[in-house]
Amino acid sequence: MIDRLIEKIKVTENPSVAGIDTSFEYLPEEVKEKCSSLADAAAAITDFNAELIESLYKIVPAVKVQVAYYEMYGVAGMTAFEKTLKMAKEKGLIVISDVKRNDIGSTAACYANAYLGSVNIGKKRFTAFESDFITVNAYLGEDGIKPFVNACKENDRGIFALVKTSNPSSGQLQDRVFENGETLYESVAALVENWGEPLKGKYGYTDVGAVVGATHPKQAERLRKLMPHTFFLVPGYGAQGGTAKDLTVCFDGKGLGAIVNSSRGIICAYKSDKYRGMSVGKAAAAAAEDMREDINKALKNR
Amino acid sequence: MIDRLIEKIKVTENPSVAGIDTSFEYLPEEVKEKCSSLADAAAAITDFNAELIESLYKIVPAVKVQVAYYEMYGVAGMTAFEKTLKMAKEKGLIVISDVKRNDIGSTAACYANAYLGSVNIGKKRFTAFESDFITVNAYLGEDGIKPFVNACKENDRGIFALVKTSNPSSGQLQDRVFENGETLYESVAALVENWGEPLKGKYGYTDVGAVVGATHPKQAERLRKLMPHTFFLVPGYGAQGGTAKDLTVCFDGKGLGAIVNSSRGIICAYKSDKYRGMSVGKAAAAAAEDMREDINKALKNR
Repeated sequence: MIDRLIEKIKVTENPSVAGIDTSFEYLPEEVKEKCSSLADAAAAITDFNAELIESLYKIVPAVKVQVAYYEMYGVAGMTAFEKTLKMAKEKGLIVISDVKRNDIGSTAACYANAYLGSVNIGKKRFTAFESDFITVNAYLGEDGIKPFVNACKENDRGIFALVKTSNPSSGQLQDRVFENGETLYESVAALVENWGEPLKGKYGYTDVGAVVGATHPKQAERLRKLMPHTFFLVPGYGAQGGTAKDLTVCFDGKGLGAIVNSSRGIICAYKSDKYRGMSVGKAAAAAAEDMREDINKALKNR
Repeated sequence: MIDRLIEKIKVTENPSVAGIDTSFEYLPEEVKEKCSSLADAAAAITDFNAELIESLYKIVPAVKVQVAYYEMYGVAGMTAFEKTLKMAKEKGLIVISDVKRNDIGSTAACYANAYLGSVNIGKKRFTAFESDFITVNAYLGEDGIKPFVNACKENDRGIFALVKTSNPSSGQLQDRVFENGETLYESVAALVENWGEPLKGKYGYTDVGAVVGATHPKQAERLRKLMPHTFFLVPGYGAQGGTAKDLTVCFDGKGLGAIVNSSRGIICAYKSDKYRGMSVGKAAAAAAEDMREDINKALKNR
């Protein structure tokens, strides 16, 4: 799976991903005014996402869809989530479901079925929320991650495990130092690199990637060295404060090895001073093109 | 919220919770045979759960519903999840949604809205998947947990944060020792105890609980001392190998402080040798009563 992501990044010349994390609050006022139920809200979000995807699919290689923004609108919201994944897939985009799932082995297997695999009902197979990649949390250790890794292997999919997150308090536990001098995030990094080992693609990266925040460049630089075969999903650019220069350390010498996410910076671009007056889709496309240029320039100038 | 759970435990004289983690595979053969779509499966699961809840609501104080078992059946599965929470609530049961959600602050706030709070659409407020408690994962540190704690405060709800999980590999990271001699699980325990401090109820416990596995009695005993105001949700009894004797260390001197989960042991009781021949509901009720007796006896004899 990681090879397909890398090839798509090469074709679009764009190591960035648009985060389709559509809160109802982000919609234009005139759309919001017409909504009075969860079903209304979910339908409006789906339409908004359709415009985004139509405008972005030639610019970005992938979308990241944060499920929390859909869960809060209930079953209707999950319908919008399902439709958003399908629309993105139909346009040839790589779909990353940002779900950060985690549990004991038997339950992790259910989550793996939901996003990366399938379930059998009678003689038919169904995939609930078909995704190319999902994010996972490794706090439970190996037997909580193995069902996801197995699903990657069986179905040619990928995961990104949380290693060093982009939020301000990520250091509270992740930067703590163990007796042997290794931090928690470094320990998780070693496990992730190891879990991916049997799933290496032709570019040297594996289907088991890592989430590494753009807001912590020192740790990201360290992780790039510790995890030579692990592809990074990099949140924290833009709205969270990470700059293109900060995140160049996430890439390898060939300019590969990472994909950078921006959510609000792209999907809410139509509300910003810079793109004001443009439609939702046009503003998102312009913001995504500006992001691509920003990151590629930083990579060239490092 | 924690006071309501404790009072319900006292009324039922039962510090245990039934885990309604209904895989389609657990249903009777004659039910499964009639299903050929996700909608069929979800409807059959809902009916199965209705029978369970009807049989259990006078015996157990609470149900724990593991969302992974519903997510794998897609939008239809999430409808079954929503209905199951509602049925349990209508019967007066305390509802624990086992979702282990985690993310950066702004996204954690969406999850908090989904399960413990509400969203506004027009002039109306909606709660997606209304729960009394949810489980959360603290790997991201304080700002990933605060939105949940705030929702607990605002809406009188509770959370259980993963501290020491019940799975075999939980020690891989959780038992690792930091420079200051403290393990990772002890560090998380200290944070959890601290986060709960402003939300203490009349029995001395707070709305911020901890998940502590029955399968690791040594660590559980240590945690009971480190977290005097933290209520424990204890998985791992029965199918996972934890015995009633093992988990007595999770309780305080008054026999309070913990609630023990059993899922397959109760909902699949109708398939076991011990309860064979009984209906799904009768077998579940008998298994839940046996579990209550087993735990209360172990507490009396410690």
